[in-house]
Amino acid sequence: MAKKLNILMFSGEYDKALAALILANTARQMGIDVTMFFAFWGLCILRNDSNMKGKSFYEKLLSAMTPKGPEDLPLSKMNFSGIGKAMMLEMMDDNEAPKLIDFLNSARKKGVKFYSCKLSMEIMGIDKNELIPEVEIMDAQQYLKDALESDIQLFV
Amino acid sequence: MAKKLNILMFSGEYDKALAALILANTARQMGIDVTMFFAFWGLCILRNDSNMKGKSFYEKLLSAMTPKGPEDLPLSKMNFSGIGKAMMLEMMDDNEAPKLIDFLNSARKKGVKFYSCKLSMEIMGIDKNELIPEVEIMDAQQYLKDALESDIQLFV
Amino acid sequence: MAKKLNILMFSGEYDKALAALILANTARQMGIDVTMFFAFWGLCILRNDSNMKGKSFYEKLLSAMTPKGPEDLPLSKMNFSGIGKAMMLEMMDDNEAPKLIDFLNSARKKGVKFYSCKLSMEIMGIDKNELIPEVEIMDAQQYLKDALESDIQLFV
Repeated sequence: MAKKLNILMFSGEYDKALAALILANTARQMGIDVTMFFAFWGLCILRNDSNMKGKSFYEKLLSAMTPKGPEDLPLSKMNFSGIGKAMMLEMMDDNEAPKLIDFLNSARKKGVKFYSCKLSMEIMGIDKNELIPEVEIMDAQQYLKDALESDIQLFV
Repeated sequence: MAKKLNILMFSGEYDKALAALILANTARQMGIDVTMFFAFWGLCILRNDSNMKGKSFYEKLLSAMTPKGPEDLPLSKMNFSGIGKAMMLEMMDDNEAPKLIDFLNSARKKGVKFYSCKLSMEIMGIDKNELIPEVEIMDAQQYLKDALESDIQLFV
Repeated sequence: MAKKLNILMFSGEYDKALAALILANTARQMGIDVTMFFAFWGLCILRNDSNMKGKSFYEKLLSAMTPKGPEDLPLSKMNFSGIGKAMMLEMMDDNEAPKLIDFLNSARKKGVKFYSCKLSMEIMGIDKNELIPEVEIMDAQQYLKDALESDIQLFV
């Protein structure tokens, strides 16, 4: 039976998302099954569209204040006015390293399983149609079941 | 034998504590044993009382500067003057989601095991009587023993 | 066979590095094998020297802006102008707790295995000769293999 990696993606920062997606892609190349469960700020990584219909005032405000998708995420450190991120992207360019969106799309092609946290979506007012289409909604109980069956569990 | 979840709660932020306590509560509902080991900033989540007796100058200063208990914790992001947190609480209200203190109290009732890190308490000058009463003190060796016996280990 | 602890050290903050190195040292005392894989900001913990030869403009800038070694790391919170860290070090002094550099050197003596992330070094322009000498370079695939063989995996 294939080994399994389970990542709880809580953070919504560019560098942490990059680290998690590099692990997810590498694991798939090794034949390891990968589940990524996106909760809280992690949901911003999967944002595809900002469909504002039917949102409450606070939900619209949060939507306007949080990142619009993978390339809009901040860094976890050194983010003074975005200099840190511009610099990191520039250095990734110099080394011809792919961008976050490329790692995300590659993970989608390689069969990484994407799940979004039901409760987080309710609290943050994020609708399924704002996320990339293959995302399935999962609750904490389903996450724990999947994590129990996994060989590696990481909270990022 | 029951499955076991072990959470090392290092961070002292509202949203991360919420995520960890939601997992802890859900795991207990599924019959999974849960150990939460609170270290460094995570200790602020368990604060019950601010007993200043016998504290050094720095300990008093740290005590005054760090959160007084679960509802006083900051968010890990978007915390500009507390707007982010007020907004999140408002949205949780709209969705009738319980507050952090409710999840903490529910976890206490459901039999989650609470441990505080001995060394962190010494460094931060936190006394056992400042924490919720059922907390037991544990050192890193006891944490590792418990983590080795667990099926899922998360560093939050 | 010995049990095994695997830590992916992503963060470059003083308090998180302290927590991870305390666990690593304690695990070695218990006869547990320990692998630490340093990626992204975590690489700053292993910095020994700031060799600027052959660096691009952005690499030099990043090098100047990031910590020079373990004792130069910021705290993950409460870092207003470094007050938080000075305070924490003062309190550690009061309690005769060793500093981060002591835990790092102790981990080196106790046989913790140190690995640095190949891709992170390329992106951040960090050279092997800037890190402590016993570090070996590892890629994500080797990290995952090691993590699969481990009993505890933590993302710090």
